[in-house]
Amino acid sequence: MPRTFRYQIMDIIKKRWSPQAYSQELIARDDILALVEAASFAPSCRNGQPWRFLIADEPDTLEKMRQVLSPSNQRWANQAPVLILIAARKTFADSGEINEWHEFDTGTAWGFLALEAQQRGIITHAMGGFDPDKAIELFNISDLYEIITVVAVGRYGDKSKLIKKLQEREFPKSRKSVEELLL
Amino acid sequence: MPRTFRYQIMDIIKKRWSPQAYSQELIARDDILALVEAASFAPSCRNGQPWRFLIADEPDTLEKMRQVLSPSNQRWANQAPVLILIAARKTFADSGEINEWHEFDTGTAWGFLALEAQQRGIITHAMGGFDPDKAIELFNISDLYEIITVVAVGRYGDKSKLIKKLQEREFPKSRKSVEELLL
Repeated sequence: MPRTFRYQIMDIIKKRWSPQAYSQELIARDDILALVEAASFAPSCRNGQPWRFLIADEPDTLEKMRQVLSPSNQRWANQAPVLILIAARKTFADSGEINEWHEFDTGTAWGFLALEAQQRGIITHAMGGFDPDKAIELFNISDLYEIITVVAVGRYGDKSKLIKKLQEREFPKSRKSVEELLL
Repeated sequence: MPRTFRYQIMDIIKKRWSPQAYSQELIARDDILALVEAASFAPSCRNGQPWRFLIADEPDTLEKMRQVLSPSNQRWANQAPVLILIAARKTFADSGEINEWHEFDTGTAWGFLALEAQQRGIITHAMGGFDPDKAIELFNISDLYEIITVVAVGRYGDKSKLIKKLQEREFPKSRKSVEELLL
């Protein structure tokens, strides 16, 4: 079902979706860091900024990050020139207390990152199918952090190169109506 | 410390912050629903769309929602013409499985909501200081949902009406550098 919009919401939000057809065209390091800077200006509880990013954009790191992905994600996400692992610091740095909002706030930062990417003609697709323990082991990540997702980052490629099952799902997905979201 | 920007990131992201000086000017219902629609186009794990919103924008509901806030938040947030409680569905609706990304995905939706608000000249401030059990009781919220935050929504008001301690903190907060966010 195609997307429909009832209100005049921001174009950048209307147009963003999570494709799987990535081009192998490289992304400039400055573009990648701009995505992180955009993410950094998300709001967070007590300005705790729990979000952290592990950027894989050169052959060795990319190769390791691909190993972290589930086989079904590897099929398409291996084409992406950049993979970014997103993690969240579980405690406040100042007090050491548990930050109950670390996942929520990191989600906000990811939203800012995704929209900044869209603005730059860069596509993103966050994956839940990956092995966090493998990521921790391969990248030696401290247990201060919770590993949340790995995001494919790149430019749109050739849809016809996807396997048939993925080609059929390669379109912006619709959403629940506003009414369905109200408590 | 004022905000500084190294990259040309989206203006809407640069300009958004979380003020506490709210005007009592009402917000049109269509504006509020547009914020929810913008939020609805966030990406989510398996398009599960776990985000839910409880809008308090008329006297009875507002009065109840104010009771949910901590006394220190009531001091300023009672001025806001709209309070929106954000909750997250803890399980996938189709399978009933726990959705490990329900907080993260709901954070992404909140980010989209905050930026759509900024685009409309509407300010937002998410609060962690509130009593979720009181919200559950007063609004009879199902235990399918986790209560995450209450957001003040409105237009910018008169900073001089804030108590002195809040006036001193009434500016856009700076952020960690990009380097500090990289694992």
